[in-house]
Parts: sequence; C-alpha cells; structure tokens
Amino acid sequence: MKKVAVIMGSDSDLPVVSGAIKQLKAFGIPFEAHVISAHRTPDDAEQFAKNARDNGFGVLIAAAGKAAHLGGVIAAYTSLPVIGLPIKSSTMDGLDSLLSIVQMPSGIPVATVAIGGAQNAAILAAQILGVYDDEIADKLQVFKNELAQKVRSKDIELQKEIDSI
Amino acid sequence: MKKVAVIMGSDSDLPVVSGAIKQLKAFGIPFEAHVISAHRTPDDAEQFAKNARDNGFGVLIAAAGKAAHLGGVIAAYTSLPVIGLPIKSSTMDGLDSLLSIVQMPSGIPVATVAIGGAQNAAILAAQILGVYDDEIADKLQVFKNELAQKVRSKDIELQKEIDSI
Amino acid sequence: MKKVAVIMGSDSDLPVVSGAIKQLKAFGIPFEAHVISAHRTPDDAEQFAKNARDNGFGVLIAAAGKAAHLGGVIAAYTSLPVIGLPIKSSTMDGLDSLLSIVQMPSGIPVATVAIGGAQNAAILAAQILGVYDDEIADKLQVFKNELAQKVRSKDIELQKEIDSI
Amino acid sequence: MKKVAVIMGSDSDLPVVSGAIKQLKAFGIPFEAHVISAHRTPDDAEQFAKNARDNGFGVLIAAAGKAAHLGGVIAAYTSLPVIGLPIKSSTMDGLDSLLSIVQMPSGIPVATVAIGGAQNAAILAAQILGVYDDEIADKLQVFKNELAQKVRSKDIELQKEIDSI
Amino acid sequence: MKKVAVIMGSDSDLPVVSGAIKQLKAFGIPFEAHVISAHRTPDDAEQFAKNARDNGFGVLIAAAGKAAHLGGVIAAYTSLPVIGLPIKSSTMDGLDSLLSIVQMPSGIPVATVAIGGAQNAAILAAQILGVYDDEIADKLQVFKNELAQKVRSKDIELQKEIDSI
Amino acid sequence: MKKVAVIMGSDSDLPVVSGAIKQLKAFGIPFEAHVISAHRTPDDAEQFAKNARDNGFGVLIAAAGKAAHLGGVIAAYTSLPVIGLPIKSSTMDGLDSLLSIVQMPSGIPVATVAIGGAQNAAILAAQILGVYDDEIADKLQVFKNELAQKVRSKDIELQKEIDSI
Amino acid sequence: MKKVAVIMGSDSDLPVVSGAIKQLKAFGIPFEAHVISAHRTPDDAEQFAKNARDNGFGVLIAAAGKAAHLGGVIAAYTSLPVIGLPIKSSTMDGLDSLLSIVQMPSGIPVATVAIGGAQNAAILAAQILGVYDDEIADKLQVFKNELAQKVRSKDIELQKEIDSI
Amino acid sequence: MKKVAVIMGSDSDLPVVSGAIKQLKAFGIPFEAHVISAHRTPDDAEQFAKNARDNGFGVLIAAAGKAAHLGGVIAAYTSLPVIGLPIKSSTMDGLDSLLSIVQMPSGIPVATVAIGGAQNAAILAAQILGVYDDEIADKLQVFKNELAQKVRSKDIELQKEIDSI
Repeated sequence: MKKVAVIMGSDSDLPVVSGAIKQLKAFGIPFEAHVISAHRTPDDAEQFAKNARDNGFGVLIAAAGKAAHLGGVIAAYTSLPVIGLPIKSSTMDGLDSLLSIVQMPSGIPVATVAIGGAQNAAILAAQILGVYDDEIADKLQVFKNELAQKVRSKDIELQKEIDSI
Repeated sequence: MKKVAVIMGSDSDLPVVSGAIKQLKAFGIPFEAHVISAHRTPDDAEQFAKNARDNGFGVLIAAAGKAAHLGGVIAAYTSLPVIGLPIKSSTMDGLDSLLSIVQMPSGIPVATVAIGGAQNAAILAAQILGVYDDEIADKLQVFKNELAQKVRSKDIELQKEIDSI
Repeated sequence: MKKVAVIMGSDSDLPVVSGAIKQLKAFGIPFEAHVISAHRTPDDAEQFAKNARDNGFGVLIAAAGKAAHLGGVIAAYTSLPVIGLPIKSSTMDGLDSLLSIVQMPSGIPVATVAIGGAQNAAILAAQILGVYDDEIADKLQVFKNELAQKVRSKDIELQKEIDSI
Repeated sequence: MKKVAVIMGSDSDLPVVSGAIKQLKAFGIPFEAHVISAHRTPDDAEQFAKNARDNGFGVLIAAAGKAAHLGGVIAAYTSLPVIGLPIKSSTMDGLDSLLSIVQMPSGIPVATVAIGGAQNAAILAAQILGVYDDEIADKLQVFKNELAQKVRSKDIELQKEIDSI
Repeated sequence: MKKVAVIMGSDSDLPVVSGAIKQLKAFGIPFEAHVISAHRTPDDAEQFAKNARDNGFGVLIAAAGKAAHLGGVIAAYTSLPVIGLPIKSSTMDGLDSLLSIVQMPSGIPVATVAIGGAQNAAILAAQILGVYDDEIADKLQVFKNELAQKVRSKDIELQKEIDSI
Repeated sequence: MKKVAVIMGSDSDLPVVSGAIKQLKAFGIPFEAHVISAHRTPDDAEQFAKNARDNGFGVLIAAAGKAAHLGGVIAAYTSLPVIGLPIKSSTMDGLDSLLSIVQMPSGIPVATVAIGGAQNAAILAAQILGVYDDEIADKLQVFKNELAQKVRSKDIELQKEIDSI
Repeated sequence: MKKVAVIMGSDSDLPVVSGAIKQLKAFGIPFEAHVISAHRTPDDAEQFAKNARDNGFGVLIAAAGKAAHLGGVIAAYTSLPVIGLPIKSSTMDGLDSLLSIVQMPSGIPVATVAIGGAQNAAILAAQILGVYDDEIADKLQVFKNELAQKVRSKDIELQKEIDSI
Repeated sequence: MKKVAVIMGSDSDLPVVSGAIKQLKAFGIPFEAHVISAHRTPDDAEQFAKNARDNGFGVLIAAAGKAAHLGGVIAAYTSLPVIGLPIKSSTMDGLDSLLSIVQMPSGIPVATVAIGGAQNAAILAAQILGVYDDEIADKLQVFKNELAQKVRSKDIELQKEIDSI
C-alpha cells in the first residue's frame, strides 16, 4: 500500500497535526511524519519531495502556518497530490496560512483543507488512496456511517437535555 | 481508466470551469461535465454523488460561487475525493466561496484549490488518478517539464525587453 | 400553532443555540430541537426539510459553524422560511459561517441573523409566526416594551455610578 | 393578503432593488415601494415602521448600502419581520453593508440576505407570508420546481457545448 | 461651557466608555452619560438628539458595538458633531462596529475614532470645544506636552532595562 | 470666522477631495486647500500644523490613501480637531487607508469619515464650527431639511416608475 | 558596485515590475532581471539564490502574486536581504500575495513593500546599498528633495484650480 | 561598524520588540533602543531620523501598533533603510498595523516584516549590514546552518513521539 507523508514546517505544529496522524493510524494507513521546513531546510524539502514517489508515498500532507510555503515548495518538486493544512498562528487568525496555501498559481495545485483541519487532511489522503484501493474505500464508508450514527446519538441525547435549558 | 466529473453549480460558471475541461482533455482523461445545483437540484446532486463511484468516477470537481455548498453536499454523499473550485462572484472578491468550500467540518473534507483555479482543479484530479496510474503520472511529469521550459523561455524573452523599459 | 424547528449541525453548537430555545420557551412557542448535520447526516436533513411543512412546522432555524451549509441544504428542500444562525468556531472569527450562510445564490434565500445571535433567531421566528398570529404579535410588543424598560433602568443605574468612575 | 413593503435608503439602490419588485410582481404579492432614508428622513422611517402593521403590511424589506442602518431603524419601531438587503457601494465590496445589517444586537433581529440578493429578499418575504397562506406556498413550490427545471435544461445544453471547449 | 454627552448603546459598554468619562473629568469638561439604545429605545435616542443643542450640549459621543447604529441615528436628528466610538464585541474583532459607524452615507457624518478608543473620543470632543474655547485649548496643549514627557520618561527607563534583555 | 484647511497627500486625491471643497463653498465657509505629504514634505506638514491655530484655522481635513499617515502627522502637531478622509487606492479597497487613519493610539485622535466621504468631511467641519457659530448651525439645519426634501421627492418619483419595473 | 536582482515569478508581472527596473536605471544601479518561478522552476530559483552573493548581487527583489512564495524560497537559500514585492492578481485584491510574502516565520525575513509598490522596491534596494555607498546615499537624498519639490509644485498648481472646483 | 536603531512607539511594545534586541546582541551588532512616538514626540522622531546617518546608524527598526505611522515618519526624514515591525494590539489582529506600515506610497518605502516578527526585523537588519560586511555575512550563514540543524533535531525527536500519538 502507498504511504502517506505528514510533513510539518515546525514541531510547534504537532498538537494540531497529531489529529492527522491519529486518523491515519485509525485507518491503518502506513505513514511517515517529519519536521521539514520550506525555509530552514529547503534542501531537505526538495529531496523529500523529489524522491517521494520512488520511496513509496502516494500522498503528501504539508502543514504550515503564517506565510505557509511548505505545500507549494513540496508540490514544486513532485507530481504526487499534495494536501495543504493551514495552521493558525498568533496573528491573522489563520487567514495568512490559508491564502498562502490555497492561492497557488496555475500549474502547481495544493489540495487545501480547513484551517487546523488535520483530521480532514488524513481523510482526504485516505480518499485519494481509496480511489483505486477498495479496502480503504470500505473503511471510509464505515467511517462515514459512524459519523452519521454519532450525530443521531447526539440528537437522541439532545432530546433529554431540552427540558433543562 | 476512472473518469473525472466536473460539476458546476450554475452554467454561468462555465467560462471559468472550462479551464478545467481543457486541461482534462489535454491530459486525455475521460470526464463528464454537468450543471447540478446544491440548492436548486439537490436530489440530482445527491443521486450523482451516491452513484459516482459505481458509475466509474474517481474524482469529482465541484465548482461554485457565493455560499458555495456544492462541494460539501457532494462530499456528504460519497467517499471519493471531491475537489472544490471557488468561483468569484460580483461581491466579496471570491472570499465567500473560498471560505464556504475550504472550511469544511471534521469528517468531510473538500480538497480546495485557488479562487478561479480551474486548471489546477484538473491537474489535482490528474495527480490523484496518477497515484496508481503510471501513464497519467508520466503525463504530469511532462507537463511539469513544459511549465519549466515556458518560464525559461519567458526569461530569455525578458532579456530582450529590458533595454526598452 | 405552527412549530419552530431548531436544528444545529453539531451538539457542540448547543451552548450558543440554547439562547434560541430559551427565547422560544419564553414566548410559549412550540418547537423541536435536533442535531442534524448537512454533511454527516444529509439524508436526515433532506427528510426533515421535505416533511417540515406537513409536520406542522412554520419556521426552521439552522445553526452551523465554519463552512455552514446546513441552512442552505435545508432551504433546498422546503419553501418554509429558513433562519440561518452562524456559529463562531476557533478560526476566522465567525466570518466563514456568516458568509457561508448569508451569501446564498438567487432562488434559495436563508434569513441570516448575527454571528451567535441565537436569541434573535428565535425572535425572528416569532415575528414570522406573528405576521398572522395576533397572540404572538402581542407578546412581541410586550417583549419590545420590556427591552426598552431595561435600557431605561440601566440608564438610571448609570447615573449612580458616574461619580465613582 | 398582507402587503410587502420594499424600502430603499436611496433611489440609487433601485437598479438592484428592482429585482425584488419584479419577483413580488411575479408572485402576485401586493407591495409598496418607497425611498426612505434612516439618516435623511428618520421621522418618515419611524412613522412608516410604527404604522406598518396597521397599514396592512406583513413583511418589510429594507435595502441600504455602506453603514446600512435602515433595516435596524425600521426594526426598532415594529415587531413585523424586517428583511435586510445589503447593497454594495464603491468601497469595501459590500462587507460594510452586510455587517451593518446582519450584526444586530440581541432583541432586534434583521433577516439578512446576500449582498445584492434582491430576488432572494422577495422570495423570503413570500416564504414568510406563505407560512399561513397556502396560495403563496403553492406558488413557491412551483417556483422551486421551475428553478430545478432550468438547471436541468442548462445541463442538457452544456452537453452540446463540451466538445467545443 | 457647552456640555458633552456620552451615550452608550448598552451598559455592557461601560468598561470601555468609562475611559471617555475619566478623560472628560480630567479636562473639567461638563458632561452627561446615558444608556440609550438606537434599537431598543429609539424614541429616547430621537428625543435626546433633537433637544441636544437646546439642552446645552456641544458634542455627542455615541458608543456602540456590532451593527452599531447609535451614532448614525443620533446624527440623523441633530446638526451637532457626533463622535462614534466603535466597541469590539465577541465576534469580528470590532470590524463590524467600525464599518457600521464610519461608513456613513453622504450628508450625515459621524466622526469615528479607533475601536475601543474611548479616551480619544473625549479628547476629540475637547478639541472640538477648544476651537472657540481657549481654556480647553490650553488644557489640550498641556495634555499634549505631558504625553510627550511620558514618552521621554519611558525612553529613559528603557535604557536601564536594555542590559537585562 | 475660523477657516477650514483641506490638505491632501497627493494631487491625485483631488477628484475625491473636491467634494469637500464644493461643500465648504456651498456653506460659505472660508478655507484653504493644499497638497502636503506626510512622507514627501514632512517639514511642510509640521509647519502647517504647528501654525494652523495661529493662522486662523479651526478645523483641518487631511485626505490620504494607502498607509495614510497625513491625519496622524498633522494631529501630532496641533490640538485643533483633525478630520481624516480615507482615499481608496488601487488595492485593498480603501481598508488600508481607513485603518491607517482611524486606529490612532490613545492621546492623538483623528476624526475619521467614510472612505471617499469628502462631502461628509466638509459637513463635519461645518458641524464643528457650528457648535459656537449660530450662522453655520442654521445653514446645517437648512441643509438637513433639503436632504430630507430630496429623499421625499425621490420617493414621489419612484411611485411613477414602479409600474415599468 | 553590488548588483540588484529583479526576479519575477511570471512574465505577466512585468507591467508592474518594470517600475522597479526604471527606478534602478534612474539611480544608475547595475541590475539583472529574470523570470524565475518558485513553483515551476524551483531548481533555477535555488541556484540563483545560492550563487547570488558570489555573482556580485547585494540585494534581491522578488515579485510574485497569489500564493507568493518566491521571496521566501529565495530567502531560504541566501543570507542577502530579499525584498518581497506583492503583485495583485484577479482575486483577493492583493491581500493573498501580501500575507504570503510578509508573514514569514522566524529566521527567514523578507523585506516587504506595498502591494504593487515596484518603485519602492527599487528605492529600498538603493537604500540598502546606500548604507555603505555614499554615492547612492547622495542620489537618494537628491531623489528625496525632488519628491518634495514635486509636491510643492503640485500645491502651487492646486491654488490655480481651486476657483474652478 | 554601523549601528542599528530599535525604535518603538510605546514601551508597551517592549515584550515583542525585545526579540529584536536579543537577536542583535546574539549577532554582536551594536544598537540603540528608544521609545519615540510618531504622534506624541514627533519632534524627537524627526530629530532622530534626520541625524541617524551622521550618528553612525546604518539601519532603523521602527515598531508600532494600530495606526502604525512610526516607520513612515522615520522614513520621511532619512534615506537609510527603515524596517517596519507591526505590533498586534487588542483589535484587528495586527492587520491595522501591518497595512499602516507596508502600504507606503511611492517614494518612501518601509521594509516590512511579519506582525510581531521582531527576531526577523533584527535578522533583516543584519542582512542589510552584511551586504558589505563579511563578518556579519558569515554570522548569518552560521545562524542559517543552526536553524537547519534545529529543524533536523526536531525531526529526530518527532520520530520518538509518533508511537505515542
């Protein structure tokens, strides 16, 4: 099975990014996680991206904040799909990372998920692998059904709480 | 080969969305294009999404403007990857469509590209199919090389123009 | 009397949405409250909306955050008035939910209130029912008079506090 | 049948607001249209709002741009539902009118539609009247069906155009 | 001497607005402070504004948050200068109140100060009265000199702290 | 009578600023207009501001775009009221000038009007002078009445146009 | 004398960037201009940046639009000062490029100028070279004086135009 | 060696600005730090800027919040490069200071770094001095290498933590 790479620009992104790692584990999808910075270790980013396909990766998740160039830099060096995960920093409420990731120029897309949407980055990676992998597709369907059941359980719980509101 | 669906919420989106269609044609990727509205033909959206995998689709591109719910509505009914393409309308400079598409809640991602980034939506679709399809992967690499050559040609042309600036 | 439905996309919205429930109780307006997600339980949303008029509902309040599609999805399946209540999440300060709800395309309006404006959602529902229901109209007038009295009381209290500022 | 009032803060808003008037005519809903300014003719706004219910109005649409106070000022003087229609002016892309209308404080809601969403303002007014008026409810259902048919026609047309893209 | 009115839309604005009251006291400028709501007590706002000049007021400060209409409503009923003080609420970081106050249409200005700029609202009121009142003008000059001295003292203190940074 | 100064940071602002000049002429208020740049002729800005009170000015209007520092720089050197008029430039839709002008720190207010609100800058200047000048106060009341009459005339005209919409 | 590099991410940026080239020519500062894309020719960007100091460059100007990574990518590979010039594209009014350039993480600054501020990018480059180069410092002072003279000339012209406004 | 000036508009900016001071110390670059306000001590700002070159300064860092005019005011009086450091205040999340600093008009650039990017302001100052000063250039290269090593160490640490996520 193809692996997923979870790359974060700084180890300070880990509390958010761990949501992606947990979800990949839950799906049983093999992955590697790395701290690689587009600006501080650009050569490492280049090498990782250039060799990703040969190293068995199918999808690359790039998480970064502020002027978040990691996704774009990775995407510059590979034709694998790159998922951009914007991280909110202490200013601009995540808008800077979102725009830095999603507004890629023609030719080099980055598949962007919500600000802080780490779980969704992992689900999207699974969906991508699941296009041709029926086992993952089945797991995604089970996951979808569970999501629905959770909402329905919450609705039942809500009925008990209404009187006390 | 899996097909790509190009769905637009309104036929007024076609001038932008045609950029995706052209790129899919250029890659030789089979596709269908449809006008389906999340709000005006919700049943059609539901049916399309529910049957997409069985109907041979591998990736779904959903283009919409303003309160752009199409991607989310499609994603609600399928576990295939859904690419959201925000369309700029006459107010808010595209920010409303971007946020309506990218800020999806946990569990249901939409892979968002730049506002008006139709060509990138198609390239991303190709990248997704190319994870397990070497022919598409090769085409993507050729495309990437051509992009680089075009930039280098422009740089050579620029040298001739500098004196006249 | 027609009922009001208070639908929230997630049970995490309840702390805000409870403001609407309290106000409906205060007006003595019959209501139901439900957790239904546009993305996780889209079929439930569809069924609820399609049957709402027949089930005795007159107004539907839809509360959701981030890419808040719930109001639009509900409105797609009913011709009853739908009130959209944007919920602020941890990023973008509520702007994403506001734009996702209010910027609906032509044909399918969602009556949007302020970000977090749960009490106002309930008052608007009462105003809608009060167009043809004189009892509710009277209650709204009483409520309006009480609002004014509270402001005037605060003004009197303020006079006592000014010296100590 | 209750009338709808269409109030605009300036006659320069008419090119947008006429979309609401056309839709009310199409639905056969009786209406009055007026230019009344919250800031230039505040007494007229007050008188209109205070007497609206007695004068046979059921819903009031207030269209205004920039610091768009008209909806709030009208809502201050009536317990009828007030629909706010934000008009885009030459700066701030409509965001100023949207926020000035939608962010109403607790107690006094204004049911806000999209920036420039004049047709939707009229449809929402019809939906409000249609809660208790079956004839309007039927017209809204017919309108909804027609919307869907138009989308489906566009989809058929699109199929003919795809080859030439 | 002309009085200054300090009007706030809600008593919850007092913690911010008290900064204006303190500064007026410091300048020895006579003032009244009131809670008057543009939306909950519109008649009171009208009466206050219409009679303000006759009641000896020279400048009116209007503090409000969210869809902050108070300044505009006051300005609609008087030709005295109205100072608008935007109050930040729990969403939109004050941008909604700022735009609702400053973006007034032609004919009815509101002199807007910074979000939460209560002290500046009072200083501006003093500057306005000081155009024809030399005593206030002198106090403003003294205040300006003191501001400068404070900055210079801080600079001296900073020199002592630099070594420990 | 005190004079009004109309200062613009660039002669390219004149098409907007002329709206202020026209209104001052209409009120018969003596004024001077100047091009003075906070950044290109800072010494001139300083001299103008320092001497403004002695030179017979009562109010200073400062119009500027982009990083609009003119109002703040003028206000730094005088205790006269300074009105800031934000000019929209080719990017950021005027938000940059608005925030650069209105968000002044404590101690040095700038009375900000709407983006491009040149007429309102002049009216505010008149209102400030009119606090102690009954002739101007009377003119402002006449102007206010005319504004109301124009709105009422537009309302009458609108009635004739409704049938043709 | 050290050279300045003017790098643009796309030849479509040239109409804006030419403003920088003209100013460098006016100052007589040697320069090279190139089209190099952070995403399409990342290896070229890397090589250019890594060798820039050895190749005689003192300052690098990087102009780019949308998710503008060029400045950051260049800065990752050199310790020379990099000036970032945000280019406005067809959406988001330049805010995306501005934030993508200016919000660089700790360790790797990009000296950002205004959106579209090409002339200022060149002037800043000259100022940087002028720290240790007295000839350039003198030219900058002459330029500054000329700027001031132009403003004063405009002020004189304005006096002639006032009567006709 | 040329000195760097670190100027802050208020001593309340020191907790952020100290990041610049620490970095200058780490590089062994001589500096002075001052509290000088563009609005409260404009004459001091003018004197400091006019004499900066003669007093041995090579680069000036200006830190300010809200309507942050300090950088522009300093730049108006010197041809030395001025680095603008936007400080986030309690409203607008730093956007006001960023735009007030970066959007400088043609002729007077301010080299802007990220909101709160104090360390980067110091690094940029070092880069500017390092254009002609090989010792600083060497230190910058060492610093760059250390940054890379830290990222690689974090990557190694991350590998140990992954199992426990």
